[in-house]
Amino acid sequence: MNRSRWFFLLAALMAGATAYGEDTPATNEGERMPAGYRDWKLISVAHEEGGLNDIRAILGNDAAINAFRTGGLPFPDGAIIARLAWRYVPSDKNNKAFGRAQSFVAGPPTNVQFMIKDSKRYAATGGWKLIQFEDTRPAHADAKACFACHVLVQDRDFVFSRYSP
Amino acid sequence: MNRSRWFFLLAALMAGATAYGEDTPATNEGERMPAGYRDWKLISVAHEEGGLNDIRAILGNDAAINAFRTGGLPFPDGAIIARLAWRYVPSDKNNKAFGRAQSFVAGPPTNVQFMIKDSKRYAATGGWKLIQFEDTRPAHADAKACFACHVLVQDRDFVFSRYSP
Repeated sequence: MNRSRWFFLLAALMAGATAYGEDTPATNEGERMPAGYRDWKLISVAHEEGGLNDIRAILGNDAAINAFRTGGLPFPDGAIIARLAWRYVPSDKNNKAFGRAQSFVAGPPTNVQFMIKDSKRYAATGGWKLIQFEDTRPAHADAKACFACHVLVQDRDFVFSRYSP
Repeated sequence: MNRSRWFFLLAALMAGATAYGEDTPATNEGERMPAGYRDWKLISVAHEEGGLNDIRAILGNDAAINAFRTGGLPFPDGAIIARLAWRYVPSDKNNKAFGRAQSFVAGPPTNVQFMIKDSKRYAATGGWKLIQFEDTRPAHADAKACFACHVLVQDRDFVFSRYSP
């Protein structure tokens, strides 16, 4: 391996350490979607009419799921809640099965939001980092703007969703 | 322990073996909900209007999820798909956050349906056992009645749901 290749490799490793390492500076933090979130367990589902016009699933990592199931609030540090949303679209096949137009399913994905609990680091927003991703890129990372509504459910540690058995 | 207690214990163990054992006869099969289904990964979500008036999540065991993600049809034997449904109810808290009445969430659970793939055993219904549970008890176990609609999606191995990324 010649000198320029070594340099390239070193630069790539350093870039990787910055972008993906645990020592990512606070300003970059949260810019990646938490790993493996699509495999997390289901908390609940919802539908938003109006401009959002989506259908949603709320998933949680094990720390979040355990807190929901045991009712132990506040959520522990490390808990992460993921809200996935898809366009709300009618299903012709399902309607045929039911014999009437009544069935709506998930269309293309719209965005994914996360609540990441770290009571010290995100103390200014109830202990939660709130961030939205569109097409895997952070699109709405102003946690304080999100938090302005989450104060409505301060008694539930700022989490709207309830666990559905 | 006296003789009647021993008899009771033995009878209880035999009953347990019949109800919960792996050697459950075919006629009883499917009367229990597949273990751990509430922890399975999410396939997609849906909403039914009309008489059903529910909001749903479709989960899959690993064999089902892998088939959905790789697009490899037909589903392999052992694949199980769970469809959980809850009453479709408005959310006052969410509506307050959004500033208008637009938000619907999962209320009390209504029923859970399963599709269990065993291409030989359930050959008469496309290789699937179809069964519905209400409050953990089998409530609608006539697979042929269910199957009458699933033939609409024979090209998708009789499965209505599509995987939502």
